[in-house]
Amino acid sequence: MKPKRMAINSPSFFIGKGDGKDLISFGSGQPDLPPPAHIFKILPKFKDFKYGLVQGQIQLREELAKQYPNSHPDQFLITNGASEAITLVFRFLANKGKKILLPRPYYYSYPHNARYANLEAKFYDLDKGKINLENFKKNLEGCCAVMINSPSNPTGSIQEIPVLRQIEKITQEKGIYIVSDEVYKDLIYERENYFFKGKHVITINSFSKTFAMCGLRVGYLYSTDPEVLDVCIGYKTHLSMNTNILGQEMAYAATKTPRSHVKTQVKIWKERRDLIYQGLVDLGLDLWKPEGAFYVFPKFENSNRVVNDLFYDHRIITYDGAWFGCPGRVRFSYALDVSKIREGLRRLEKYMKKRGLR
Amino acid sequence: MKPKRMAINSPSFFIGKGDGKDLISFGSGQPDLPPPAHIFKILPKFKDFKYGLVQGQIQLREELAKQYPNSHPDQFLITNGASEAITLVFRFLANKGKKILLPRPYYYSYPHNARYANLEAKFYDLDKGKINLENFKKNLEGCCAVMINSPSNPTGSIQEIPVLRQIEKITQEKGIYIVSDEVYKDLIYERENYFFKGKHVITINSFSKTFAMCGLRVGYLYSTDPEVLDVCIGYKTHLSMNTNILGQEMAYAATKTPRSHVKTQVKIWKERRDLIYQGLVDLGLDLWKPEGAFYVFPKFENSNRVVNDLFYDHRIITYDGAWFGCPGRVRFSYALDVSKIREGLRRLEKYMKKRGLR
Repeated sequence: MKPKRMAINSPSFFIGKGDGKDLISFGSGQPDLPPPAHIFKILPKFKDFKYGLVQGQIQLREELAKQYPNSHPDQFLITNGASEAITLVFRFLANKGKKILLPRPYYYSYPHNARYANLEAKFYDLDKGKINLENFKKNLEGCCAVMINSPSNPTGSIQEIPVLRQIEKITQEKGIYIVSDEVYKDLIYERENYFFKGKHVITINSFSKTFAMCGLRVGYLYSTDPEVLDVCIGYKTHLSMNTNILGQEMAYAATKTPRSHVKTQVKIWKERRDLIYQGLVDLGLDLWKPEGAFYVFPKFENSNRVVNDLFYDHRIITYDGAWFGCPGRVRFSYALDVSKIREGLRRLEKYMKKRGLR
Repeated sequence: MKPKRMAINSPSFFIGKGDGKDLISFGSGQPDLPPPAHIFKILPKFKDFKYGLVQGQIQLREELAKQYPNSHPDQFLITNGASEAITLVFRFLANKGKKILLPRPYYYSYPHNARYANLEAKFYDLDKGKINLENFKKNLEGCCAVMINSPSNPTGSIQEIPVLRQIEKITQEKGIYIVSDEVYKDLIYERENYFFKGKHVITINSFSKTFAMCGLRVGYLYSTDPEVLDVCIGYKTHLSMNTNILGQEMAYAATKTPRSHVKTQVKIWKERRDLIYQGLVDLGLDLWKPEGAFYVFPKFENSNRVVNDLFYDHRIITYDGAWFGCPGRVRFSYALDVSKIREGLRRLEKYMKKRGLR
């Protein structure tokens, strides 16, 4: 008799299950390619142990200031990954209003962080991954801030530059904050990233995806509004104090990575993107071609059943779109080797044939 | 003409000012003695970069489980320092009630974290650093939890074991949680630490003070109640994800430190304690003899003026008791070399003579 299946209801179900030999994981959203080797070279000489600045180490913030036009090291706050930056910013926003506008599908921590900060989450629904400006504007009413996530987790979409410019303008006129989560900004296949500008913009970023440093937890926020920095540093003083000093040293080393390193990696990501996208299209699935990050988001009726079937019967990990506010789709991360992607596609085909889905 | 003095209103004023050559800092609450050397030995071989478990690395939790009688690795959650553990626990408690009882004087993050978690802070006033049980019981009414901090920052006091036992019992009977902040548990000069027991106890601890790892930000919480763990891990998933994996590796290495290392350090702390305590007594100051941590907390009328005068006129950093809910006292951290403590005492004497305080 087969063992009873435990229903899979969140990504945490898969924790510790991703390393099985026969398992193909399209689950976790983290690079499999290693970080630039030189970030480890600073380790043998490291001897610090004392508290660092809550705002983050000055040499790291100086390097970041070089990356953002006309910025200053004081305009950055180094955090425990982008997650903590979101936490701090949402707390700041709760002093400014009651509602925040989030994209849907969304990165699954957004609504939780809104709730923790006592912000009511409203949503603008993406149309095949893209913002519909009319719909967006309608929902914006009464919100103190809007979250933009381009490239997006889980959709892999980027937003068009004219649309982003419009949003930048509308929000500025209305005195609404933009929180721009740009953790995938270096993983765009189509164009360069578009930076929002203005005092009403709070940019969130991380070393996790660009430099494959997820476990080291170094993110940051950037704003030209001193109030944002003051208030967020105040919160961080009591919530967690400085971000780990060694992670910051490694992040500083990462800023010295030649641009060619990132370009080479983007090429690899793009090959994988092309492979999985074409594979899913060939299986007759309904999806759009992702332009950034490392996710595809095909349509599947009864997506939770699909996620369960694929795991229990075919040893494939995928994430239910419902976990991102979008049931009826399944997220595949393609942060894995092409040979594994191919094997995963073969298993998926087998499953779909069995169920008469193709 | 003398430059205008900026009023000193919080510890953050002193950030970046502690390293002046002629400055004696009794300010920051962190060990000056270095960590055990072997925690750095793991660094040259370190190559990990992927997300770790939100709950914390299993090998570290297994070691912790050996330190707590009858405990299990699943009963620990590794956090970004004790600060984050406090944050998570207070959030958990906000689901259980509206009020939390805090000691006063208090570690200055407690009331902030209570506010962030939507908990109303009530206070039990310590009597020369000690809990008055009658007063304590009176204030306990209507609270869902009570915070105990023994040894205490900023008082340096420990609580008597019979009192702690009473509190353990009363709270258990009333269904009130104890949050026991024991970050100074290994820096007690008089006796061993007393561990609270029971499902209603949530213990908070850290590698920061025992092993001088403040900047590396590794703390933890321990509870035998699975609900506490489930809920706090849930929060941490969205607030910051895993604690930095390298800090955890170093913390794991720290668990291998022979007990003699800590004992040797306690001897040094005790010498310093004796020196500064006697010095302040000789200056005629009103204070109690600290039994743990590395703080003395003498009485000074108009403590804010004293802190300002000492900094601007005598190049001494001290913290105003008001920042810990206790104006009229000044906190001196003695985490510095005996020669510096002596020089600081000389300067203090000069100041007191000038002001006619002795």
